[in-house]
Amino acid sequence: MLTTRLTHAFGIEHPVVLAPMDLVSGARLATAVTTAGGLGLIGGGYGDGEWLKREFAAAAGTRVGCGFITWSLARHPELLDVALDHQPAAVMLSFGDPAPFADRIRAAGVPLLCQIHTLDQARRALDAGADVIVAQGGEAGGHGVGTRSTFTLVPDVADLIADRAPETLLLGAGGVADGRGLAGALALGADGVLVGTRFWATEEAVVSARAHARAVTAGGDETVRTSVYDIVRRYDWPVEYNGRVLRNRFIDRWHGRETELAAQLAEAAAEFKDAVSQQDFDIANMIVGEGVGLIQEILPAGAVVRRMAHDAAARLGRWVPHTAAVGG
Amino acid sequence: MLTTRLTHAFGIEHPVVLAPMDLVSGARLATAVTTAGGLGLIGGGYGDGEWLKREFAAAAGTRVGCGFITWSLARHPELLDVALDHQPAAVMLSFGDPAPFADRIRAAGVPLLCQIHTLDQARRALDAGADVIVAQGGEAGGHGVGTRSTFTLVPDVADLIADRAPETLLLGAGGVADGRGLAGALALGADGVLVGTRFWATEEAVVSARAHARAVTAGGDETVRTSVYDIVRRYDWPVEYNGRVLRNRFIDRWHGRETELAAQLAEAAAEFKDAVSQQDFDIANMIVGEGVGLIQEILPAGAVVRRMAHDAAARLGRWVPHTAAVGG
Repeated sequence: MLTTRLTHAFGIEHPVVLAPMDLVSGARLATAVTTAGGLGLIGGGYGDGEWLKREFAAAAGTRVGCGFITWSLARHPELLDVALDHQPAAVMLSFGDPAPFADRIRAAGVPLLCQIHTLDQARRALDAGADVIVAQGGEAGGHGVGTRSTFTLVPDVADLIADRAPETLLLGAGGVADGRGLAGALALGADGVLVGTRFWATEEAVVSARAHARAVTAGGDETVRTSVYDIVRRYDWPVEYNGRVLRNRFIDRWHGRETELAAQLAEAAAEFKDAVSQQDFDIANMIVGEGVGLIQEILPAGAVVRRMAHDAAARLGRWVPHTAAVGG
Repeated sequence: MLTTRLTHAFGIEHPVVLAPMDLVSGARLATAVTTAGGLGLIGGGYGDGEWLKREFAAAAGTRVGCGFITWSLARHPELLDVALDHQPAAVMLSFGDPAPFADRIRAAGVPLLCQIHTLDQARRALDAGADVIVAQGGEAGGHGVGTRSTFTLVPDVADLIADRAPETLLLGAGGVADGRGLAGALALGADGVLVGTRFWATEEAVVSARAHARAVTAGGDETVRTSVYDIVRRYDWPVEYNGRVLRNRFIDRWHGRETELAAQLAEAAAEFKDAVSQQDFDIANMIVGEGVGLIQEILPAGAVVRRMAHDAAARLGRWVPHTAAVGG
């Protein structure tokens, strides 16, 4: 057992939290993670009220939380009420200013998780009263600022928390794909981890078999941070954000040529939409992080939670004789 | 004591190796690291034979190695003989194909360290017969490919080594600035760490007091990977490499405007050269990594080695009760 401040605070067995991946993290995946002893978060994403109600209903009886894309939530603030009506285990806010929503979440007695990518964002999250800071490095799949890495951001934020609000918990995110990642994040000063790509590659994730098959053969060098897919999806992301995806033919064609892409948007967007419907991942996007290279098989989510926790404990336990010698 | 495969193989006390930073890692710093129980590497850098001879002579009696910028060494291959004449504890090759030099190094009975930034480079280093792979993430100061992060590259390379050449040792590099970084790298699967920025910020480093004073107040968000300084220094780096430095006025002006910079090169290069001589770090470069935010004071290098090892052991030792419960 790896008990940490996180496992104590949330009454969970393993310090492993499911990233609320938009559409991918549905009720089935979130409940599987919670049932295995972690904490499942439903992906509220860009904001679809009916989807959110349906997934919360499907998860009824199991303790799950949910996460939102904050700048998108600001356009549909009523979705926060939908979430709070279901007494979520936590609400996570990512990609935007949490301050306008923080008071309502905390007034509802719901723990507030704020995902940050820079120290400046971390300071603002602490100002907003975050209960948990999720420090996400640029190796993560999907959106982020991408200028910091998990390896230095976690201890940097740990120092900030120790200085300003020591009761705040800290999760490491970005690149955590196995027991080594969990052990590494704990060693770097985190109280637990938030995991995306490794849960994306589970049986319960809302991901096609074809995407899964491609992921298990992909190497860690094959991802890239880009804005290409935000352009073709006409998503209105703030300029500081881009997203990590698997490289493919479409990326090789357009990455670094975004101005030309914008000039040919109608055609490229139609090609992209068509590819999504046909699951043609030479053109359609696969949102995975650098950790994809560490994933060799699609597993049940519960097995991922248990293996990660067990392997991390075993890995940290290897140092017992040496550390005992130092500590004694 | 944190004993690992590295400490056994090199007969050292702590699994901490000094990055052979060009000009910064002279005899004084390298011998201080070795004397404290780590392994010091002199920075052979772009290749100055007289400097290399002088520093090896100054380190006589203390076991140190040295490192080269491989593409530059290829233009001055005689420098390898200078190094091998001094029976170095190790030779490290970074940034280029190690194959043309590997046989001579190994024939001299000298351990070969190869620094890599991608899995493809790691495969080539193993093919060349590297004894130690240094897996460096893009959070590192100075040059690199910058597309991978320490947090995922270390376990990725650990898996590659386990599969292809399990006797090869692995160092994590990039962002290792304190005991948390050492503990994190070991947890992620490394046998030790290679440390640059934290040793750059020591009393024995060949770094000006003014640069040091600026570094201790800099935050981890304040560095950036760029080619601006290679352009103004007219260094002929292969296109896949850029370098992480502290942001300043010069970077804010030219980063992202490299074509314009090249068009005004004579003027900008003169301005840069002048700033270097005046130690004006609003214009001159400070080569530090993301870990700079974790550094609050300039210390003797020996204190850095000992604190890093002691803190890492204590941090890993915290998990004893839990891991014992799992392991039993």
